[in-house]
Amino acid sequence: MTKDVADSGSSSSLLVVGSVAFDSVETRAGKRDQVLGGAASYVSAAAGFLTPSPVRLVGVVGTDFPIEHEQRLAAHRIDLEGLERVPGRTFRWAGVYSPDFATRTTLDTQLNVFESFRPKLPPAWAASEYVFLANIDPVLQLQVLEQATRPKFVACDTMNFWIAGKRPDLLRLLQRVDMLLLNDEEARQLSGESNLPAAARAIRALGPHAVVIKRGDAGALLFHEGGVFAAPAFPIENVVDPTGAGDSFAGGFMGWLARTGNVSPQSIRTAMILGSVLASFSVEDFSLDRFSRLDLGQIRERFAAFADLVHFEKIKL
Amino acid sequence: MTKDVADSGSSSSLLVVGSVAFDSVETRAGKRDQVLGGAASYVSAAAGFLTPSPVRLVGVVGTDFPIEHEQRLAAHRIDLEGLERVPGRTFRWAGVYSPDFATRTTLDTQLNVFESFRPKLPPAWAASEYVFLANIDPVLQLQVLEQATRPKFVACDTMNFWIAGKRPDLLRLLQRVDMLLLNDEEARQLSGESNLPAAARAIRALGPHAVVIKRGDAGALLFHEGGVFAAPAFPIENVVDPTGAGDSFAGGFMGWLARTGNVSPQSIRTAMILGSVLASFSVEDFSLDRFSRLDLGQIRERFAAFADLVHFEKIKL
Repeated sequence: MTKDVADSGSSSSLLVVGSVAFDSVETRAGKRDQVLGGAASYVSAAAGFLTPSPVRLVGVVGTDFPIEHEQRLAAHRIDLEGLERVPGRTFRWAGVYSPDFATRTTLDTQLNVFESFRPKLPPAWAASEYVFLANIDPVLQLQVLEQATRPKFVACDTMNFWIAGKRPDLLRLLQRVDMLLLNDEEARQLSGESNLPAAARAIRALGPHAVVIKRGDAGALLFHEGGVFAAPAFPIENVVDPTGAGDSFAGGFMGWLARTGNVSPQSIRTAMILGSVLASFSVEDFSLDRFSRLDLGQIRERFAAFADLVHFEKIKL
Repeated sequence: MTKDVADSGSSSSLLVVGSVAFDSVETRAGKRDQVLGGAASYVSAAAGFLTPSPVRLVGVVGTDFPIEHEQRLAAHRIDLEGLERVPGRTFRWAGVYSPDFATRTTLDTQLNVFESFRPKLPPAWAASEYVFLANIDPVLQLQVLEQATRPKFVACDTMNFWIAGKRPDLLRLLQRVDMLLLNDEEARQLSGESNLPAAARAIRALGPHAVVIKRGDAGALLFHEGGVFAAPAFPIENVVDPTGAGDSFAGGFMGWLARTGNVSPQSIRTAMILGSVLASFSVEDFSLDRFSRLDLGQIRERFAAFADLVHFEKIKL
């Protein structure tokens, strides 16, 4: 296969490392107890709509993780060879959203089997070209990169907890990733800059040549060598559950890169929109429920709706 | 003149009613004492870059308002025939912004001559086709509409104070305007809906066929018969003073409608971007200072930058 063919690659592989969990969620739209959740679940399921081959998920669950959940993940084109099952209970998270979705309160976090998790890539997965490190301890994120032999594009997420508590490890990680995704508050915390373009510039100086700042229902901003790109959020009137929206964004994003094998600035802009598309579907129901009745036709339709959402004509002035 | 020619009208007139003030402002970038401000000043100056004929400003100042300020407004292509000068002191506002610009604290408001303001249109202005009612008492906004004989497009702004204290008057006003501009918190307060698309739908049911929800550095959303349109804010690294940004947005918006004489959904989308362009310049300095060194070439350039900011390619899925 020539390099050109490989680059436009129909066989680009996507590796996702992160949590698989039981979520208990309450929103104005209702309540769900111990449903399938976790960052890696959302990222992988969203990406699975786009990737040419099944998404490689590396994570850990306990013996209480039902076979039905595994089947459900597999149905989303997720390869579970890297999902360890170890004695103990699966990671659990519980939270409640304010009626206007402006704030989320965590009621309970039980790391359980995640506490002693050490990511191990199946040998055949070491050569994965696209790697997404969901929000986990940066020490573990680095362990994944030690095992990845030829990543073409590495992106990672993080959170306030690691920015404050594991900054040296996070900084080491940032020197080795192509892109960091984080929300506006995390960007401010990491950079010490309140202005977002200034924060992005400071973060890019730490290593990642691209930074995506997620702003919830205000969309996401991409800062990279292709300039600045603003992806709107799709105005959704009936938000059911925002849990996993940022992870679904990451999944749509990475899924598009893996699908096209193209990491050019233009392709990364498109990836931002596909991320926004998958995020917009994710919030329409609890857990992965909206994804379970989603198809490529609906994704295509909403992509077109995003194009319309920001469309304006050229003018003469 | 045939109707078609009038509609594409090179002579569409824009009337702006609102406050002209002395502002005292403190931000992380510095401090200014009693500089030229007021909603009508920003709206009119921004619009003046675009309108085919001078902007008609209706407002009131006191005897302390210096001739230099009048000259400065006139230099922005503002017709001051409707700017009353009455005995007393000009409206004064003082405020301070938090270092991250997330919050603004009003330190002082002195209505002064504005307290007994009754807007009076010069007779020749009664036939103005485009009317913008900046944020003042809805009773006064209604008085302007009583005097306007053939408005083609009326837009208004409002604020939390009137939504809470003069709701019946505001509701009467809304039945007579084509478009309401307000910020996200005001939209929630007016509609009782926390979700913005739901809020916009509720507000449109009160009269205005178009609603623009301003979200500061998260851009603005337009809800109208042409669907939803998301205008990004331009990422500005060196914000100096956000005072008047929303009014500059309104000015750019109305200026475009008056320039083209076109109120189609497509034209209104373009107006949203020109509003965003003028707002993005406004925040780069105190008072109208950035406008004083702004020209059409810079506006053209930033319009192109907005197009680039949201540009992504069509894809096949």
